[in-house]
Amino acid sequence: MALLVQKFGGTSVGDPDRIREVADYVARSHRRGNQIVLVASAMGKETDELLRLADHVSGTQPGREMDMLITGGERKACALVSMALHDLGVESDSFTGSQAGFLTDSTHQNAKILELRPDRIREALEAGRVPVVGGSQGVSTDNNVTFLGRGGSDTTAVALAHALDADACELYTDVPGVFTTDPRLVISAQRIDQISFDELLEMTATGCPKPAMRSVELARAYEVKLHVRSAFSWVPGTWVTEEGPMEGALISAVTHDTSEAKMTVSGVIDRPGVAALLFRTLANADVNVDMIVQNVSAQGHTDISFTVPHDQVEAATEAVDSILGSLGAAGVVADDGIARVSLIGAGMKTNPGVAATMFETLSGNDVNIEMISTSAIRVSCVVRETQVELAVAKLHAAFELHMAPEDRSHI
Amino acid sequence: MALLVQKFGGTSVGDPDRIREVADYVARSHRRGNQIVLVASAMGKETDELLRLADHVSGTQPGREMDMLITGGERKACALVSMALHDLGVESDSFTGSQAGFLTDSTHQNAKILELRPDRIREALEAGRVPVVGGSQGVSTDNNVTFLGRGGSDTTAVALAHALDADACELYTDVPGVFTTDPRLVISAQRIDQISFDELLEMTATGCPKPAMRSVELARAYEVKLHVRSAFSWVPGTWVTEEGPMEGALISAVTHDTSEAKMTVSGVIDRPGVAALLFRTLANADVNVDMIVQNVSAQGHTDISFTVPHDQVEAATEAVDSILGSLGAAGVVADDGIARVSLIGAGMKTNPGVAATMFETLSGNDVNIEMISTSAIRVSCVVRETQVELAVAKLHAAFELHMAPEDRSHI
Repeated sequence: MALLVQKFGGTSVGDPDRIREVADYVARSHRRGNQIVLVASAMGKETDELLRLADHVSGTQPGREMDMLITGGERKACALVSMALHDLGVESDSFTGSQAGFLTDSTHQNAKILELRPDRIREALEAGRVPVVGGSQGVSTDNNVTFLGRGGSDTTAVALAHALDADACELYTDVPGVFTTDPRLVISAQRIDQISFDELLEMTATGCPKPAMRSVELARAYEVKLHVRSAFSWVPGTWVTEEGPMEGALISAVTHDTSEAKMTVSGVIDRPGVAALLFRTLANADVNVDMIVQNVSAQGHTDISFTVPHDQVEAATEAVDSILGSLGAAGVVADDGIARVSLIGAGMKTNPGVAATMFETLSGNDVNIEMISTSAIRVSCVVRETQVELAVAKLHAAFELHMAPEDRSHI
Repeated sequence: MALLVQKFGGTSVGDPDRIREVADYVARSHRRGNQIVLVASAMGKETDELLRLADHVSGTQPGREMDMLITGGERKACALVSMALHDLGVESDSFTGSQAGFLTDSTHQNAKILELRPDRIREALEAGRVPVVGGSQGVSTDNNVTFLGRGGSDTTAVALAHALDADACELYTDVPGVFTTDPRLVISAQRIDQISFDELLEMTATGCPKPAMRSVELARAYEVKLHVRSAFSWVPGTWVTEEGPMEGALISAVTHDTSEAKMTVSGVIDRPGVAALLFRTLANADVNVDMIVQNVSAQGHTDISFTVPHDQVEAATEAVDSILGSLGAAGVVADDGIARVSLIGAGMKTNPGVAATMFETLSGNDVNIEMISTSAIRVSCVVRETQVELAVAKLHAAFELHMAPEDRSHI
């Protein structure tokens, strides 16, 4: 008998049949004596449809109104899941984020949770009921409906699991867990049984789409046991824990990300404060800079390259143009045709050969490396976007990620 | 400069173009210096779609969850209307029923307003903003979302107009106002410029679909000036006032209703308490009895006929069957093939000839009258459903309702 927070959304509750299947699964778990809190995000493509509707109605799209609109998707899913549970004889109530006690700041479309007071959820559990909470939403201190952002339902689930001291937070999705790489690119990709928060964070930061990075950060901060698993096969998926498996694999996964562009500011005067000026200016323009590489200086000048999301290239270019003089720089160029491939593994901390093997594998397959950045448990290389699938497949094979962890030769 | 409550819904806000057109109209009125409170009901057929979705998901459809689901339609419309106003430079906020201060009882799917505290609406108005309120919704005393029922947005608008002491409550719809009869049946049907609450109530009770009867009752009780008008032509429609026009028309309208069946309990023993037993039993079975006619007694037995909505025939039959013995009755039969045609007019109070003219008109056109019931301002006849269009057209002509009121000969 456990207290479980289970999150479902998207295709998992994409149509009436799926909703009834989810309800059936939850009802059986509830009958086995488990206490269950559900978090529902919007059905299928509902959020996209609401956004499209807003596009047709309004150019300004004020945040407060967008939040009122978008959170309706989660609320609808909640009510439907709850009534499907009723049909199976399971007493259940749906709750909006506000009713569930999510107090947030007033940053519409991307609100932060300030406090969680799940009194009504606790009452429902004590009464033997299954509460179904609308994901990614809350109420602001000035009493307006707020949206936590896309993927925010994972955050809702983790926050509830923490506040209720749940035994686990189960994120049900359309894939069976976290994989050694994108299974759409590499057919031999393996589901990972157990992974550490740090590794999963690096993966989500470098292109692994699920779970949402913010929820992983929150789960790590509060030591919430995460279980990423399938709402279609219902078999166990990937456990995310503090440390990952004892003496686990050297390398856990290969990720890739094609959502960024590389920008290069050339001919920057090499003197203290120049980089600070550049990145403060970009931060003030709300540009999300990711990798940063500065070349070795030659004749008092250097090139600084960094990656930014595709849709921020324009803002970044404007920001840099405005300070070209102060930087003493020749100009700034953007390159849309790049991708990032990353190798993630807590085991690489103590294995200096990993990066070398990665670079050899790429060069051995004629993949040119344009930028490199590393952390204690990650090495990332920027390559041509046209070569990223090749790079992922070759790295996945070179590090034997298609094998069970215990069968891999530790390179 | 006036304070106006304006309600829009259904086809009036059926798609993005319509929403922008409504916003444009409201923005112009706001710029002329009017204070405006909007009430939005769900877009187009959205409520029907949500009900269909619930049908596919759940057989039990608990009221609390249905309300959570259905009220989402109004909320979505609100947010979209509000953001469309923003685009036109009009500061606007959407409000759920709860945020707008609608406190209700806990009768889900058909909640009653207990109290209205529109503090946030007043604040918005004082700040020069246009509040957009979700129609037909509130929050119950136990803090759950409630739905006031289909057509409840009209009630929301009237309640707000009363609480805010508005100059008028404008119900915008897809027809230009209240008509002398259904314009789909009689092409010469005329829009009525002004009508009394009593007459409109009788009309909505006997088949006139808009506005919702409950909102007319509320407007009458609180003397809220109602204006039923078109959201397509934007020209003035029908004003509903306490007394109607001074010395107005004798007859205001002909209505018809095909939603009921006639039930006849035959051979009932004619003794005190029999009718009481019959209609108490039906009331206990939640059967909505409308017209009641009892024939003259013959040999100590009589027939009692009444009308009930089509979908309650089964329940009514069961209820009556269970007490046939106590009634001493021979049996109960239901007749689905009837319709009711009604003549409405405050002027008929002092004109005893009206009913006679009605009966003559029907019999002169070979329309047989099966039941008759009257009130001070209405005469209703049950006729064969196949003859109802004929009956409506002939009565409309006989009482000269195709003419302007001042041109009619007072029959």
